[in-house]
Amino acid sequence: MKFVLGIDVGGTNLVAGCVSTDGARVEGLLSEPTRPEEGADGVIARILDVARRSMAGLAAAVPGAKVDGVGIGAPGPLDTRRGIVLLTPNLGWVDMPLRDRVAKGLGLPAALDNDANCAVLGEHWRGAAQGTRQALGVTIGTGIGGGLILDGRLYHGASDCAGEIGHTTIEMNGRRCACGNYGCLEAYASGPAIARRAVEAVETGAESSLAALLRRGPAAVTAQMVYEAATAGDALAREVVQDTARFLGAGIANLVNVYNPEVVVVCGGVTQAGDSLFVPLRREVGRRAFRPAVDVCRILPGALPGTAGVVGAVRVFLDAAGR
Amino acid sequence: MKFVLGIDVGGTNLVAGCVSTDGARVEGLLSEPTRPEEGADGVIARILDVARRSMAGLAAAVPGAKVDGVGIGAPGPLDTRRGIVLLTPNLGWVDMPLRDRVAKGLGLPAALDNDANCAVLGEHWRGAAQGTRQALGVTIGTGIGGGLILDGRLYHGASDCAGEIGHTTIEMNGRRCACGNYGCLEAYASGPAIARRAVEAVETGAESSLAALLRRGPAAVTAQMVYEAATAGDALAREVVQDTARFLGAGIANLVNVYNPEVVVVCGGVTQAGDSLFVPLRREVGRRAFRPAVDVCRILPGALPGTAGVVGAVRVFLDAAGR
Repeated sequence: MKFVLGIDVGGTNLVAGCVSTDGARVEGLLSEPTRPEEGADGVIARILDVARRSMAGLAAAVPGAKVDGVGIGAPGPLDTRRGIVLLTPNLGWVDMPLRDRVAKGLGLPAALDNDANCAVLGEHWRGAAQGTRQALGVTIGTGIGGGLILDGRLYHGASDCAGEIGHTTIEMNGRRCACGNYGCLEAYASGPAIARRAVEAVETGAESSLAALLRRGPAAVTAQMVYEAATAGDALAREVVQDTARFLGAGIANLVNVYNPEVVVVCGGVTQAGDSLFVPLRREVGRRAFRPAVDVCRILPGALPGTAGVVGAVRVFLDAAGR
Repeated sequence: MKFVLGIDVGGTNLVAGCVSTDGARVEGLLSEPTRPEEGADGVIARILDVARRSMAGLAAAVPGAKVDGVGIGAPGPLDTRRGIVLLTPNLGWVDMPLRDRVAKGLGLPAALDNDANCAVLGEHWRGAAQGTRQALGVTIGTGIGGGLILDGRLYHGASDCAGEIGHTTIEMNGRRCACGNYGCLEAYASGPAIARRAVEAVETGAESSLAALLRRGPAAVTAQMVYEAATAGDALAREVVQDTARFLGAGIANLVNVYNPEVVVVCGGVTQAGDSLFVPLRREVGRRAFRPAVDVCRILPGALPGTAGVVGAVRVFLDAAGR
């Protein structure tokens, strides 16, 4: 049975797994911290290590399995043709020839694409967007990324920058974003932005189970805790999640009106909030976008939590290899 | 020499012209008021009349010229496959089989597409977006429309609704838009919105050459007059144009980040404002969008003022006919 190794290089975690060439089977799935503070060489060494351990996991699970190549997803902007990460503030990389360093280190052919592109490609190949011609993927984590499937294929744009939905303005004079702009969707609805809005609300004196956590310092409250508190019925946390749905809804409605997709797949930790997020999210999109566009568009959580990026990175390799 | 008749059905004016099948020559160009208040049958009769007069103009200019068919651009949403305008508030139409009524009336095969799609298609075929693979067209008039060229072809989306950049939110809780949403780009930067912002500014007591016009009533100030006053150096009018550039810049920057086009073509009366609009517009997009996306993207006025819609409608017919 043939496999391809997929690697998802995140600012916080590295994930690797071996995916069968039909996309149905994932073996040797591993995750470990990226530790960008240890420098580029340290991160590359850790990528190669986690890759080798994943392939060892595959060999143990499927004796005789063959790994044909490596697909890599990394934060952008990047140059997919040359396999270079141009600039990644979270990792501190500039013009890093990631594809070739991984290929050389493992002795396997490799392909590289943007991590959010990989996630939507994974969801399109084997997840929630299967069988669609037009799909929008939104990945919510430390930042907000996105990817577009147009007429059944990943869309890259004129310079490999397409899909940056996190950096679309929803408030002209709104919150300052890490990208330097004001009022970006990411400044309202990324994981850290969700936590920050919860902290701000608690600090105004609103009652919440999060107040006790906050006494340990503002960094003690994470988006994850907000979802858990909301699920447990905490009124303030529920309001923060509902506001998140409104912000996300405005950003997604914009693309529903411009791209008219069949499906929007929302990936990342935020999907743990479940219906408390998706019900008001769908309502907000329905309120803001045109009926004929809304009527044909499903808004769904990703079906491959934890593996979409790896599965999609494998699809990137297969596409690059013409398979 | 072979020609195709193009008809641009606007809420205010009907424009018709005969375009040579290489797109280089426009003959029999005519425009007349749409007069939607006279009902659908009246508008259809006027469309057929202006079409026949345009073809007569062609016959006079190019003896022996043959008209092969008709391309029609109309406000959406519409069903391009069935040739039906589903709903057009400005014209009061519901489920109007416009393509077949025009085809029958003229005895010629016809094709139908959205008016903004026609404009960007015209600019892509023979205007400012020629030779590009990824282009965004923005049409600014009574409303704001848009169209996308992706990988060299017009993109329709899952249900013929793609490109509605006028109805993307730039202010979550902003001005009410005719579409029912709040904070749409159209509510800030359409022709009537530009005039309305000028009137509001004059009404606060700011000095302006527009104040004299306003004494005849708020409807006496049009966007056209604002551009003229700005060009003549009126400080208030210049500020209104600069604010227009900021609003448009935010909306366009969103699509530059998501769609990463080679060119954005801005069409409509607003282009008369020239550099007083385009200089701050490019600055605003540069401020809001990612450098690698901005660096590859030109922002240009349309090169076919008054004819882009007609030329693009002809291209729609040729594409539908497989030529």
